[in-house]
Amino acid sequence: MQLGLVGLGKMGANMAERVRRAGIEVVGYDRSPGKRDVDSLEALIAALEGPRIVWVMVPSGEPTRATVRELGDLLSPGDVIIDGGNSKFTDDKMHAELLGPKGIGYIDAGVSGGVWGLENGYALMVGGSAEDVAKAQPVFDALKPPTPHDESGDAIPGAGFVHAGPCGAGHFAKMVHNGIEYAMMQAYGEGYELLAAVDLIEDVPGVVASWTQGTVIRSWLLDLLVRALQEDPALEKITGYAEDSGEGRWTVEQAIEHAVPMPAISASLFARFASRQEDSPTMKAVAALRNQFGGHAVQAVQQQEAEKPA
Amino acid sequence: MQLGLVGLGKMGANMAERVRRAGIEVVGYDRSPGKRDVDSLEALIAALEGPRIVWVMVPSGEPTRATVRELGDLLSPGDVIIDGGNSKFTDDKMHAELLGPKGIGYIDAGVSGGVWGLENGYALMVGGSAEDVAKAQPVFDALKPPTPHDESGDAIPGAGFVHAGPCGAGHFAKMVHNGIEYAMMQAYGEGYELLAAVDLIEDVPGVVASWTQGTVIRSWLLDLLVRALQEDPALEKITGYAEDSGEGRWTVEQAIEHAVPMPAISASLFARFASRQEDSPTMKAVAALRNQFGGHAVQAVQQQEAEKPA
Amino acid sequence: MQLGLVGLGKMGANMAERVRRAGIEVVGYDRSPGKRDVDSLEALIAALEGPRIVWVMVPSGEPTRATVRELGDLLSPGDVIIDGGNSKFTDDKMHAELLGPKGIGYIDAGVSGGVWGLENGYALMVGGSAEDVAKAQPVFDALKPPTPHDESGDAIPGAGFVHAGPCGAGHFAKMVHNGIEYAMMQAYGEGYELLAAVDLIEDVPGVVASWTQGTVIRSWLLDLLVRALQEDPALEKITGYAEDSGEGRWTVEQAIEHAVPMPAISASLFARFASRQEDSPTMKAVAALRNQFGGHAVQAVQQQEAEKPA
Amino acid sequence: MQLGLVGLGKMGANMAERVRRAGIEVVGYDRSPGKRDVDSLEALIAALEGPRIVWVMVPSGEPTRATVRELGDLLSPGDVIIDGGNSKFTDDKMHAELLGPKGIGYIDAGVSGGVWGLENGYALMVGGSAEDVAKAQPVFDALKPPTPHDESGDAIPGAGFVHAGPCGAGHFAKMVHNGIEYAMMQAYGEGYELLAAVDLIEDVPGVVASWTQGTVIRSWLLDLLVRALQEDPALEKITGYAEDSGEGRWTVEQAIEHAVPMPAISASLFARFASRQEDSPTMKAVAALRNQFGGHAVQAVQQQEAEKPA
Repeated sequence: MQLGLVGLGKMGANMAERVRRAGIEVVGYDRSPGKRDVDSLEALIAALEGPRIVWVMVPSGEPTRATVRELGDLLSPGDVIIDGGNSKFTDDKMHAELLGPKGIGYIDAGVSGGVWGLENGYALMVGGSAEDVAKAQPVFDALKPPTPHDESGDAIPGAGFVHAGPCGAGHFAKMVHNGIEYAMMQAYGEGYELLAAVDLIEDVPGVVASWTQGTVIRSWLLDLLVRALQEDPALEKITGYAEDSGEGRWTVEQAIEHAVPMPAISASLFARFASRQEDSPTMKAVAALRNQFGGHAVQAVQQQEAEKPA
Repeated sequence: MQLGLVGLGKMGANMAERVRRAGIEVVGYDRSPGKRDVDSLEALIAALEGPRIVWVMVPSGEPTRATVRELGDLLSPGDVIIDGGNSKFTDDKMHAELLGPKGIGYIDAGVSGGVWGLENGYALMVGGSAEDVAKAQPVFDALKPPTPHDESGDAIPGAGFVHAGPCGAGHFAKMVHNGIEYAMMQAYGEGYELLAAVDLIEDVPGVVASWTQGTVIRSWLLDLLVRALQEDPALEKITGYAEDSGEGRWTVEQAIEHAVPMPAISASLFARFASRQEDSPTMKAVAALRNQFGGHAVQAVQQQEAEKPA
Repeated sequence: MQLGLVGLGKMGANMAERVRRAGIEVVGYDRSPGKRDVDSLEALIAALEGPRIVWVMVPSGEPTRATVRELGDLLSPGDVIIDGGNSKFTDDKMHAELLGPKGIGYIDAGVSGGVWGLENGYALMVGGSAEDVAKAQPVFDALKPPTPHDESGDAIPGAGFVHAGPCGAGHFAKMVHNGIEYAMMQAYGEGYELLAAVDLIEDVPGVVASWTQGTVIRSWLLDLLVRALQEDPALEKITGYAEDSGEGRWTVEQAIEHAVPMPAISASLFARFASRQEDSPTMKAVAALRNQFGGHAVQAVQQQEAEKPA
Repeated sequence: MQLGLVGLGKMGANMAERVRRAGIEVVGYDRSPGKRDVDSLEALIAALEGPRIVWVMVPSGEPTRATVRELGDLLSPGDVIIDGGNSKFTDDKMHAELLGPKGIGYIDAGVSGGVWGLENGYALMVGGSAEDVAKAQPVFDALKPPTPHDESGDAIPGAGFVHAGPCGAGHFAKMVHNGIEYAMMQAYGEGYELLAAVDLIEDVPGVVASWTQGTVIRSWLLDLLVRALQEDPALEKITGYAEDSGEGRWTVEQAIEHAVPMPAISASLFARFASRQEDSPTMKAVAALRNQFGGHAVQAVQQQEAEKPA
């Protein structure tokens, strides 16, 4: 079997490697010449026997959309494009409508695993027709983690892979995954902050580490927090500045669209927004109001600056 | 009629003035010699004919508790102490139990009005026995605002004064008032921030000012925000740093005690906490987690510092 | 001067009346024959001398869009359409782009005032070109409330009317107004619930009424809450079910779009969503998790039903 | 070695069993005669050689406090009491001060593991003096899970056990653990609800199951959610009603005490409160306000009832 892979960044290159280890031939293309096997999308297509499977692993948004459009012009009926990037699920419907009349299949694949995926496997949430998914199944099987067993020794069916629904369902599922991730990280962060705020707890990293076994809140993220605290026990080398990657925003937008109350995930998203502000216009307004009704001390800009440690 | 008033700070001095304007004789005492009429609590008691009404207007917590204890040793059965400070309602029960056996009455009075109270009157929420409240009613009538009329011209019965219940009810009602205040200020703040964030709105102060008449959200606080924006249209002279005075915390604590969901008020309280942090330990943990699972850029402390404007 | 007014529902009819009282001739059209002055949009146009001002006051979304399109085909260069409905601000840009090439002006007007507007005036937030706004200014002046004075006797400049920016700015400002409204209502609601939850407060409606004068949280909404509690002191005749009208959702969407933390307004929106759910899927999942890790009693559907009051 | 164990409920009995398997003799006492080894606390003390270790595993609050007081009267200098229940950390300081003058040691132990602890081990967070902890270490070693290894094969030092600080630190750490647990459950719940709300996702349980391997959000709780959805794919047999056990409330109280912003955990706590309300007084007030300013339909109690499914 063959796989065409467009986009050989850190993620794409690792995925190519994992697929190759499973005995599937991978032909890789990237805009930059370094690691690519072929020099153009045309050459990529030419190097694959039909029906072709082409996995797109480029930045979401216009780069992905442009690649899909270009592939749509080059591929043949029966071929299948898989978008494995972090695209918004609304793009998938657009792509399916573009490719459908040409007889080209389309699958959206939400991929989780990051730098750990090469060794552990990538969790895959895919959307598309049963027919297209069947064509690509060997690739999914190569990428996904081995079937796990829970603590009771039972196999967990479906762990690491799901065909979630029609086009868009894969990216939607991955989007929700990321929304949950935001709130889990916020939950650990809030707990960490409270531990660190009290003198009573003399070994904060030790408490966090103790939670990794036997507790209700043990998780992979918690293991990572333990590692982070081993390297930097009071997190002094890091600033509380957190980007958001789009999926968190889309999750809350979809919650609003569907009238789903989402207080914890939205709070986590807003905490990230706030983490990136030099000062909060909301709190400026609050401070201004307190100043107006008097009696409350307001810190003027100069004074506040003066109080900052040198 | 006479009133003894302990505590002649800005608030106490203004209240004394308003009571005097209503024809009630006020004997004022303060720890500092400047403006006081008598030099000791003993002299204050001696200057008042029984049954005495003594209003305590000193900082909440230990200063108020000490004053009440001292007065309890000096006053006579039939006298009444009023705590008009921002005491926690749990102190009131303690005070009532201390004074009851001595035959001394006790009223807790939540007072709102700030620097505007002298002219506009002070809103009063009081707790205590009907008998004690009746004794002090002339003082309350002097302090409270004139009976208002709503926009339809109807008198609003009970505006500006309520006997809310037994001891503690006054301060509890004032505490809830302040909790609501936190969320209203946060609401205006969030709206202001969104207006200021978009290029589409060319006249942010004008939009806020437009809301002061005819809208659903017009209020006294909104009038104050208009004033603040007149003085400093982009709030450049103020930092987004907001203290909290205790009542907001107690409101959320009571919500938790009584299993009352309180998402908006608690969010407003937490926003104040966050406004006072140089950096957020929660977000440090979130950033550390993002760093651990890789692919996400983390701003190291040095880099972040370098990016701050000089 | 003349005004064409499309849409004679409760809001439109009241606005027509207020404009007429200011001496402006109003020609009204509505789909239903009852109160309309003319029988078609064509007749409306014919009844007005150019340059015409036509105010559209029909349900937002497709009804408004269809009306604007139809008017765009009928009106002449120099005429101006005003959309006074609750349209999303993104529709305004579309409308301006549709009408601009035809030489027809377009103004979006956010209107607040509800059933009280006829007597008190309507707050207006408008977006559009200075030229178009100038043409319609007499109509705005007729609709807006009289210039108010604050509690210090100073006129509040710009109260009740603002030209907020280009097309869309009016509806955007009104949208933010409504977002703030959500959080203010939630704030009062949370405070009310805590008061009602404790035995200590013996006169909940009295406490709320007391806040209407002299306090920091006095507002028009608070006056309305007093009225509601006068009619139904424990709110027994009403269920806690609250619709949302779109603007609240759009406000939070825009906050997300612009990375504005909006915890209080979003919490208020989510509380409305939750108020309309028979049961919460989120809390089903939470209860299921508690069941799985054991030790916690889970209420099965049957048991829960049995416990409901007959 | 010997251990005295007071309280042989499900949790206590399992812990006794796990300690026995490690070769430690356990003498158990319970108020109810069924499974106990001795018939009184006096008999328990008599059956143990000094220095004695007595583990208290009874309901938190007064039952635990009464047991500790009683043991304090019976034990000898050098003995150690361990409170393994869900006590508030403030009780620990009280207990330490009660027992210290008698020369009796005191350790607070937060225990996590539930019904799974017998086989997997119990995570232990303990507070107390180094001397006391050393005495009880063999018991802790018997109870805690085997040392785990992370996904890279490295041992995670300190997993499953921590000596967090002086008296109170153990229960404080367990309290924060539970606060985090609330927010993690809420996060999964919100994600589940959004998946279930959209037609696009055709296999909700499958999506949740797919997340258990290779993803960022895999955790033990997620495994439990998979089990719950296997048994009841749409959670139709369960109502969205969730108790809270105290630790969540205390966590938020402590956050307030220490000015720690805690939006996600508090939102999760409030969602539990709301889940237990037949109707929301907050939303009644919101609905009443909407009714007052008119134009909005309010559902009267009767109408709402009629719309409920029979």
